[in-house]
Amino acid sequence: MKPLKYMLIFIPISIIAEFMHVSPSIMFILAALSIIPLAGLMGEATEEISFYSGPKIGGFLNGTFGNATELIISFFALKEGLFEVVKSSIAGSVIGNILLVLGASMLAGGLKHKTQTFNKKVVEVSSSMLLFAVVGLCVPALFTHTVDSSLLNTKYEGLSIIVAIIMFVIYILSLIFSFFTHKDIYSVDHEDEGATAKWTLRKAILVLVAATVLIAIESEFLVSGIESITESFGLSEFFVGIILIPIIGNAAEHSTSVVMAMKNKMDVAIEIAIGSSLQIILFVAPVLVFLSLLFTPMSIIFNEFELIALIVAVLIANRVSNDGESNWLEGVQLLAVYLIIAASFFIL
Amino acid sequence: MKPLKYMLIFIPISIIAEFMHVSPSIMFILAALSIIPLAGLMGEATEEISFYSGPKIGGFLNGTFGNATELIISFFALKEGLFEVVKSSIAGSVIGNILLVLGASMLAGGLKHKTQTFNKKVVEVSSSMLLFAVVGLCVPALFTHTVDSSLLNTKYEGLSIIVAIIMFVIYILSLIFSFFTHKDIYSVDHEDEGATAKWTLRKAILVLVAATVLIAIESEFLVSGIESITESFGLSEFFVGIILIPIIGNAAEHSTSVVMAMKNKMDVAIEIAIGSSLQIILFVAPVLVFLSLLFTPMSIIFNEFELIALIVAVLIANRVSNDGESNWLEGVQLLAVYLIIAASFFIL
Amino acid sequence: MKPLKYMLIFIPISIIAEFMHVSPSIMFILAALSIIPLAGLMGEATEEISFYSGPKIGGFLNGTFGNATELIISFFALKEGLFEVVKSSIAGSVIGNILLVLGASMLAGGLKHKTQTFNKKVVEVSSSMLLFAVVGLCVPALFTHTVDSSLLNTKYEGLSIIVAIIMFVIYILSLIFSFFTHKDIYSVDHEDEGATAKWTLRKAILVLVAATVLIAIESEFLVSGIESITESFGLSEFFVGIILIPIIGNAAEHSTSVVMAMKNKMDVAIEIAIGSSLQIILFVAPVLVFLSLLFTPMSIIFNEFELIALIVAVLIANRVSNDGESNWLEGVQLLAVYLIIAASFFIL
Repeated sequence: MKPLKYMLIFIPISIIAEFMHVSPSIMFILAALSIIPLAGLMGEATEEISFYSGPKIGGFLNGTFGNATELIISFFALKEGLFEVVKSSIAGSVIGNILLVLGASMLAGGLKHKTQTFNKKVVEVSSSMLLFAVVGLCVPALFTHTVDSSLLNTKYEGLSIIVAIIMFVIYILSLIFSFFTHKDIYSVDHEDEGATAKWTLRKAILVLVAATVLIAIESEFLVSGIESITESFGLSEFFVGIILIPIIGNAAEHSTSVVMAMKNKMDVAIEIAIGSSLQIILFVAPVLVFLSLLFTPMSIIFNEFELIALIVAVLIANRVSNDGESNWLEGVQLLAVYLIIAASFFIL
Repeated sequence: MKPLKYMLIFIPISIIAEFMHVSPSIMFILAALSIIPLAGLMGEATEEISFYSGPKIGGFLNGTFGNATELIISFFALKEGLFEVVKSSIAGSVIGNILLVLGASMLAGGLKHKTQTFNKKVVEVSSSMLLFAVVGLCVPALFTHTVDSSLLNTKYEGLSIIVAIIMFVIYILSLIFSFFTHKDIYSVDHEDEGATAKWTLRKAILVLVAATVLIAIESEFLVSGIESITESFGLSEFFVGIILIPIIGNAAEHSTSVVMAMKNKMDVAIEIAIGSSLQIILFVAPVLVFLSLLFTPMSIIFNEFELIALIVAVLIANRVSNDGESNWLEGVQLLAVYLIIAASFFIL
Repeated sequence: MKPLKYMLIFIPISIIAEFMHVSPSIMFILAALSIIPLAGLMGEATEEISFYSGPKIGGFLNGTFGNATELIISFFALKEGLFEVVKSSIAGSVIGNILLVLGASMLAGGLKHKTQTFNKKVVEVSSSMLLFAVVGLCVPALFTHTVDSSLLNTKYEGLSIIVAIIMFVIYILSLIFSFFTHKDIYSVDHEDEGATAKWTLRKAILVLVAATVLIAIESEFLVSGIESITESFGLSEFFVGIILIPIIGNAAEHSTSVVMAMKNKMDVAIEIAIGSSLQIILFVAPVLVFLSLLFTPMSIIFNEFELIALIVAVLIANRVSNDGESNWLEGVQLLAVYLIIAASFFIL
């Protein structure tokens, strides 16, 4: 986390640049560089607060704020009507977590520890949930793409809201599952009971609030720059959504996962990747559908590329969890699949 | 099973209604309400007979008559040329078994017993078979949808008959497998050796014959009402086939599965769901293709919706069997996927 | 291997036939009958050499020459510009290995030994790799088929080269993995340490060189006859590529796998099937893309049929490896899926 802190310098730079009416492309880059450490800071603050609030509320806070950065960025993209960016960043977060984060963790951890084992039982529960959630989320899109596409976006908002409500209900139920009825399954994860808070509760709350406000400001800069950056660099909005935004929003989390893998805590590393993907689908996606009702209703119908990426990610997550073991070659292969997907998006 | 018996009153009502030339939509509803208890009665009679016939013939009878109701309904739909209804009810039975029945069983059982375990080995054999069977059944359809659709229904009957013969041969072989060469795998299931027959053999046979005849009569009422019910309620034939008919034909079996799950016999509950799906694919589907030769040859080429539903069901069945464990949240998720599929079919 | 040797008589026959200007269709058949024993001889020679070279270089040689026959046939097909044949033979080799070879091995072994067990751990590593490799290889094709097909073959060569390089790098890394960093996982396979070389090193090298030269000659006969054989027998080039060529190129390997299964060495039988598939994807496919740069660049974009076949094969390989057990019914089912795929290709 240390080196990320130096990147906080990009916050004042970006604000000054904004007043100097710097080009939107540069604003996009500065905002991206600012959001990375802010997301890390937000994560740290949430963890500190959870020391004071006890494990239950702490777990809930960690879960809810874990993807807050992406939620905020997507909110501003939604406001601008950039539906394609919003939807592709949902799919992009999932493949980023499963292929990039997990791949990098397995590679880094595997190089240091040869073969790493993890608790199959916990990972299987999460990866099953991920399979069911992705299947549920994708069914309307799968059906849509097989019927005449001219019908698209007419009555799909209704279906999207139904799906969003079902996903959100499952999210609530999964919290009840993990914090009440089946909390014993998850107890293995949090071994560092000896750890104590570094910050006072007051400081932690202050940092959390400040980070949230700053992320919101920077997200607005970022979103305003999307159009300009796609033109300057010949990128598609789609590539920005599926590759760039998820990397910006998750960089801090990614580094935590890799650090955990290097400490041979592969369970934690995998839980971050799969758990974060689950949250994107069960919490972030439905909340964005609900928020879109404030502006223009957004349907949750993914395009074929996003579907393929989501299904690939789920199949791989399920395969990975079956093993109960990981090594550097598995990591390399996940990264290779990510690279091929990114290259395909870039070229097509 | 008790409350289902009161529904037998709908049999005389439906027959009287037929003579009074009641509207076909109402006949559809009355026939549906009659078939549900009749299917239960047929199952009970088959089980009674198996006490007298010994486990081998009994197992065979249970297997063959397990889906007799659906076979009879489909036969009449076939006679009417309602190919779409026949094919979608095959796919609908599989997703109904895997998502609705298994989901409800896991939810009901999980609420009572927290985490339920089952014999992974037995379930894995069935779910592997289901994967291979669905893949085999879907390959011609997958190929068909990628070539020019104008060729459809020209030479696909030939391919359908080949596939039907292969499926039927595997069905015969699977009976040899489970009753002769590998009967020891399945011995765990049938623990209630102490149970005795409640009925005389004569009574059981009489009930079986009577139920079969009545189901045939009611199925004819049901099928004649399909066109009218789709018009009155604005449903597609497709929705009737994939959602309504499988629920009507399997309701009795469904309730058995849920009761077994609540008795913590999760092995039996899962075997009912997966075994019944297998039988639909390896026995009911080929028999319908063969029967269609009496009228107009029916191709077994599923449409894209049916394919998606089948593949989703198989992936989920395989995932579920991997765990060796189930809980209420897993049940809720299977139900949620079913709900989303049903809503998509309803809206699209 | 013995009966295969008598087939060597087809080599002089084919050469005499060539001088007598026999019709290309007959040359195709004679060449096919010659290649089958030659591929077996090449395998034997490679194994003999590995006795002298030690296990590391021996393993590498076995791996590299294991698919040499297919590489040579494909090279000549490439030279002739028969891209469809080349690509479909890649997909065909994978399904041939997973469905035909593994199915036949499980059937033959299962009939003799009832239930056969194998080392799940080793097979899981291979089948995970196969999943990742196939997913990586298919992503560009999946994306391509969802966009306007009129764009095809314009900029896909670039993407194909990127994918080929990534696959080849993973191939090199997988050699490092299995011969250096994780060689202990694979040590179980090679138990017959007591065996000694039957041939001198000089003889083995001579046989290898002679077999390679003869395979090259016969491959040229074979490829020249493809056009004629498709016309005479009403077959598509596609059928030749996906069914016939893989059977010709792999027949010797296939018989080894079945023999191993009958000796109850199921681990070895499965490793041959999955390992050979992996090599086709990670080594043969990229090398063919590189070689095509000498003539006309070939894109590695599979058509929908090949994609479906590849994905089916991978799903089944992953399911099979999960069990850790096999029996004759599983074998029959794999063969049934192969038969259905072959029948579909034949009819469509």
